[in-house]
Amino acid sequence: MTDLAAVKAALRNQAVETPSWAYGNSGTRFKVFAQPGVPRTPYEKLADAAAVHTLTGVAPTVSLHIPWDRVDDYAALAKYADELGVRVGAINSNTFQDDDYRLGSVCHPDAAVRRKAVGHLLECVDIMDATGSGDLKLWFADGTNYPGQDDIRGRQDRLADALAEVYARLGDGQRMLLEYKFFEPAFYATDVPDWGTAYAHCLKLGDRAQVVVDTGHHAPGTNIEFIVATLLREGRLGAFDFNSRFYADDDLMVGSADPFQLFRIMHEVLRGGGLTSAVAFMLDQCHNIEAKIPAIIRSVMNVQEATAKALLVDQKALAVAQWEGDVLGANAVLMDAYNTDVRPLLAEVREDMGLDPDPVAAYHRSGRHRRVVAERVGGTQAGWGA
Amino acid sequence: MTDLAAVKAALRNQAVETPSWAYGNSGTRFKVFAQPGVPRTPYEKLADAAAVHTLTGVAPTVSLHIPWDRVDDYAALAKYADELGVRVGAINSNTFQDDDYRLGSVCHPDAAVRRKAVGHLLECVDIMDATGSGDLKLWFADGTNYPGQDDIRGRQDRLADALAEVYARLGDGQRMLLEYKFFEPAFYATDVPDWGTAYAHCLKLGDRAQVVVDTGHHAPGTNIEFIVATLLREGRLGAFDFNSRFYADDDLMVGSADPFQLFRIMHEVLRGGGLTSAVAFMLDQCHNIEAKIPAIIRSVMNVQEATAKALLVDQKALAVAQWEGDVLGANAVLMDAYNTDVRPLLAEVREDMGLDPDPVAAYHRSGRHRRVVAERVGGTQAGWGA
Amino acid sequence: MTDLAAVKAALRNQAVETPSWAYGNSGTRFKVFAQPGVPRTPYEKLADAAAVHTLTGVAPTVSLHIPWDRVDDYAALAKYADELGVRVGAINSNTFQDDDYRLGSVCHPDAAVRRKAVGHLLECVDIMDATGSGDLKLWFADGTNYPGQDDIRGRQDRLADALAEVYARLGDGQRMLLEYKFFEPAFYATDVPDWGTAYAHCLKLGDRAQVVVDTGHHAPGTNIEFIVATLLREGRLGAFDFNSRFYADDDLMVGSADPFQLFRIMHEVLRGGGLTSAVAFMLDQCHNIEAKIPAIIRSVMNVQEATAKALLVDQKALAVAQWEGDVLGANAVLMDAYNTDVRPLLAEVREDMGLDPDPVAAYHRSGRHRRVVAERVGGTQAGWGA
Amino acid sequence: MTDLAAVKAALRNQAVETPSWAYGNSGTRFKVFAQPGVPRTPYEKLADAAAVHTLTGVAPTVSLHIPWDRVDDYAALAKYADELGVRVGAINSNTFQDDDYRLGSVCHPDAAVRRKAVGHLLECVDIMDATGSGDLKLWFADGTNYPGQDDIRGRQDRLADALAEVYARLGDGQRMLLEYKFFEPAFYATDVPDWGTAYAHCLKLGDRAQVVVDTGHHAPGTNIEFIVATLLREGRLGAFDFNSRFYADDDLMVGSADPFQLFRIMHEVLRGGGLTSAVAFMLDQCHNIEAKIPAIIRSVMNVQEATAKALLVDQKALAVAQWEGDVLGANAVLMDAYNTDVRPLLAEVREDMGLDPDPVAAYHRSGRHRRVVAERVGGTQAGWGA
Repeated sequence: MTDLAAVKAALRNQAVETPSWAYGNSGTRFKVFAQPGVPRTPYEKLADAAAVHTLTGVAPTVSLHIPWDRVDDYAALAKYADELGVRVGAINSNTFQDDDYRLGSVCHPDAAVRRKAVGHLLECVDIMDATGSGDLKLWFADGTNYPGQDDIRGRQDRLADALAEVYARLGDGQRMLLEYKFFEPAFYATDVPDWGTAYAHCLKLGDRAQVVVDTGHHAPGTNIEFIVATLLREGRLGAFDFNSRFYADDDLMVGSADPFQLFRIMHEVLRGGGLTSAVAFMLDQCHNIEAKIPAIIRSVMNVQEATAKALLVDQKALAVAQWEGDVLGANAVLMDAYNTDVRPLLAEVREDMGLDPDPVAAYHRSGRHRRVVAERVGGTQAGWGA
Repeated sequence: MTDLAAVKAALRNQAVETPSWAYGNSGTRFKVFAQPGVPRTPYEKLADAAAVHTLTGVAPTVSLHIPWDRVDDYAALAKYADELGVRVGAINSNTFQDDDYRLGSVCHPDAAVRRKAVGHLLECVDIMDATGSGDLKLWFADGTNYPGQDDIRGRQDRLADALAEVYARLGDGQRMLLEYKFFEPAFYATDVPDWGTAYAHCLKLGDRAQVVVDTGHHAPGTNIEFIVATLLREGRLGAFDFNSRFYADDDLMVGSADPFQLFRIMHEVLRGGGLTSAVAFMLDQCHNIEAKIPAIIRSVMNVQEATAKALLVDQKALAVAQWEGDVLGANAVLMDAYNTDVRPLLAEVREDMGLDPDPVAAYHRSGRHRRVVAERVGGTQAGWGA
Repeated sequence: MTDLAAVKAALRNQAVETPSWAYGNSGTRFKVFAQPGVPRTPYEKLADAAAVHTLTGVAPTVSLHIPWDRVDDYAALAKYADELGVRVGAINSNTFQDDDYRLGSVCHPDAAVRRKAVGHLLECVDIMDATGSGDLKLWFADGTNYPGQDDIRGRQDRLADALAEVYARLGDGQRMLLEYKFFEPAFYATDVPDWGTAYAHCLKLGDRAQVVVDTGHHAPGTNIEFIVATLLREGRLGAFDFNSRFYADDDLMVGSADPFQLFRIMHEVLRGGGLTSAVAFMLDQCHNIEAKIPAIIRSVMNVQEATAKALLVDQKALAVAQWEGDVLGANAVLMDAYNTDVRPLLAEVREDMGLDPDPVAAYHRSGRHRRVVAERVGGTQAGWGA
Repeated sequence: MTDLAAVKAALRNQAVETPSWAYGNSGTRFKVFAQPGVPRTPYEKLADAAAVHTLTGVAPTVSLHIPWDRVDDYAALAKYADELGVRVGAINSNTFQDDDYRLGSVCHPDAAVRRKAVGHLLECVDIMDATGSGDLKLWFADGTNYPGQDDIRGRQDRLADALAEVYARLGDGQRMLLEYKFFEPAFYATDVPDWGTAYAHCLKLGDRAQVVVDTGHHAPGTNIEFIVATLLREGRLGAFDFNSRFYADDDLMVGSADPFQLFRIMHEVLRGGGLTSAVAFMLDQCHNIEAKIPAIIRSVMNVQEATAKALLVDQKALAVAQWEGDVLGANAVLMDAYNTDVRPLLAEVREDMGLDPDPVAAYHRSGRHRRVVAERVGGTQAGWGA
């Protein structure tokens, strides 16, 4: 038996962070297909993010990416966000798009390059201070393409040194979120390839160093919800980078490739207390061929639907069946929740919040896209490189 | 017992085709790291390819990629190649870098886009006529990113129509080589995802339609040499796109990630008569962080070493052990050849051909790189997009 | 808009074949956990299968496996099935559990072993004649564990010879269904590893040779619905072996690991006309730790639910969105159907058929399990080896 | 420049532990093919292991597996080993072949089953005391097959409790070696699925809890040498279970599927000081279709060859090239060592040790197999189940 009022309250209080870069152009190594109306400045990205929050009610923060979102006055940017009804979320560093980083950044064999990279990370903390952001999200493209190219162990030592220096700079209430990735752009060895490596570094740094689970950053077949459960049990799950994939780091809309997996992840989040803790639920996606804002709205809704289903799991019946060793019975309890159509429930939640029950349709009706395409003429569209 | 003179003759007669685009800049979606001295024109790419052939003696042809290698006068380009001692190899089409191809090319739902794509393929045949190329190599980025996005079966129908139209245009002595790829840039369904699909289309087209095996285009764990053996048995192996990978389509130097796999592939090539047939041995690589010409020389040498080892397999002893069901004995015959250090043998072969026994060292001694860096100033470096 | 009456009619007419061996004990290489009440004879397996059909109404046929289901009088067995209200479905051969098959069966290097294996396959056709079965289902464990162990190409020749001999023996209205499998029990090369190999052999045999898609027999990440669409387009999809997997050939209940994938497969089945054709929908599962009959009922229901959702796809809206290149719109049409809770609809269908709307609950209420456990005392429980 | 005398000394001092179960019958879930001459008792397994040590000179210890190697008098067994010139190595527990373990052992929802499992583990420590073994090797088959079947987090708690109880029982100089495995026999969630989980548990237990890397227990594409380097850096690499695989946990002869990978692993072992530390180099293989003793000899030789190549890496040249960021140069230093034919060097090492330079040939010449087949008549052959 689930308490429907509590479920609805949990859904009203949910928060999904959207990434500034998902509003800009993106693509594969083969081609970036530009889209009309894409933002040209960090301010325009915030405006798009605010549009998503206005329609969904559960996307109050926006991740920034430096230098893609570099501005002269970060306090002004944060103030603008505030006026739009959103806040600055995690600050994401970028140590992979400078020519100096061909062989890595904080793991580079050359100390001068490492210093430059650490300098950038410290700048990101400055931006946190200026914007009120509490999270420094670190993903390193560092790694090697060929066996022997560099020393795997030596690179770990350099990584540890860099992380320690940056961690020491964090202020009260600021966290370091360390992301791992199985492969790409490094093709032989990646310096933070799995949750174990990220966890081991966080342990040595301190409590405010936590792991980011990007749902697209695992080897084929990896049980991601196991990792989620384990990190929650260890108190080291800092955030999600949500997206989905069929193959590698496809960065598709979260829940689009395997909605059952997303449900299982949210089930473990609930089981481990992650919904009401400091775990940040962020999107990290690339809408290469589909319209960006509707894709992000849809992604937020997919997270909501998975969460709603997880909230509907009859926890008591589940515990009893598990305790009795009733394999099929326990599985059936979980599947009952998953097979429920939660769209009506979420429509009610939205109406309770004063929102349109169908945010995608509301967006299309709003004419915002047409208006924005007309307004955003000239300038340079934002993208991964700008 | 192997006939060493025959082995050396086979190695002297081997031919590896290098791709014009491997001499230019390349990268991942995260970053293209430009390198000094990279060619700016198709002519300069041919010059680099000729340098590789001069040093290795076994790289007499160069694949072109249209439009990256578009020139006004293809006959002049072919003549220039001839003067440099090389020839134009396969013409590679590109139906993925135009904005019109966001949802596909020959499989696109819009007939106008399909016509444009077919027009490009027919242009490639014109270029074959002008350059004397015998091979049209087709790789399609076509596919979909989301379930339901387009009709899988309808796209196959459109693909079949386009291939038939282009096949009909081929002249005598010209082949259509159809490449398959497991995924990327499409992330849900790829329209030619595996050898079976390419093979089924080729069967319907005719004898001169053949399959290309790109060694990086398979699902994890796929036994590529089985596919090679099967396609040779069916008479449908047209060419290789050689490279190597640890994860996805990493495009690393062939033989660098799994030299034993490359040896097993060459063993099946020999077993199926592929070394003395029309099978084309092409490289298709991206030297994102390493120096390009030495990487290509090394790749050619890796193919030579794998071939040499395959030629050294004691075929008679192998057949006997296989016939006797001697699992360990048969495996040991194969491993004896693989474990042989064939570098001295190849050094002899090179000296027999009047070449330096160590092409990489010879390249570095030559000073060519320094000279080329000094000469190639200004202009736009060639890359995937140019 | 979907025609609900037509949807319900399609669901009433659906047929799922259950496998005799799924009612017996099974396990992994580490352990077979025996379960009380498991059948001891082919007759008892048929009784269990009939119980599943009685409860679900859509499981009218039973696959047999020879020699596990070997009896003296196959006509009597078929008659017994008839009395129980079910029929004999596909006859499955077994060429992997005799000591002679250590190095393969129809691909074995020793002609005597190959003759023995072919003899077994011909015996299976005799059993088809005696039981009225129309389908010979062939899965070969043949392959090699070590490179060089046997000749990949030579094994294909032997396979082709064996298939041709058996195909020639088929009577009118009998089919040969050839199954492929990525790996296991062979660990280096499998002789029929993918749909392309099975398809190529079927093409040479004739129209009544068709491919079996076992949903657990693919490389990680393989898009199975693409293969389904392609085989239907080629007229070569003979049957499914349904099960599900997270890793390898896990043989879990179909739809339990990735229900969205099963839906996508059924969507392509419908798109390709497979629901109303001769395609056979078979289960091939191992209920190692869960109760067998409820697991099979649940599996049948999972197929029904996926089919119902596929039937609910608004085909017209989908086609329009696809034609317009509306990526998100087309995906949304598909997801709308998938997100629908079809359990009430299927409950109605069952009630229309005079069945209990909840077959699992009805089974538990029936007391059949307790009765059978009490009756099936002594004898040897059926399992993979008996 | 490498010091050849030092290389030879290192090779003479190398030790590879062979597993008692590899001398017995094994197979897949489809079939165990029995082989003539297989041992029937732990005593006969020790005799076979001693034969391998006599021929190779580097296999002085034998892993035991309880209950497969259960005897009445372990001290007598150890004494017998001593007489044969070998010693008892790791004691391997088995908590997967009792009917009680259907839903797990130390993670089972029922406390009584957990107590039984812990009891077995404590018995294994008793056997360590009796035999002088210093290593308790723990691999748990625990996990679940279906989502919801049991509580992932609760199972971790139970696992932690069990490990703590057993760790507390260890005597001075005894270690607990915790093995992880990606999947199988559990097909949804495995309770110790990756090195991170094993590492996190070991951290909490104490210094003598260390991680076992089984080279077949990873997701596709996992960079195993990275894990080796990381665990050595953390001081937590306890042992290897060597074998090789193309797909899953194939348990083929180590080095047979990817000899280059084995070399890279041994390179990281050397880099991390693992060759001269307490890291145990164990085989864990299944010789399903090949002759067992020659397969084990070959496996030992494969480890030796990979080690020899790793010892030949010009560490100084490698470090210089890495420091200079010379991608191709550094890779070439590594490949030079890998491409060296080290068989003559190892033949010399064996001759220095008074051994036959070709242990496989010496074994075949010895006539031991024929003799043993004649002697070992009657009784029950050892296998995974006995």
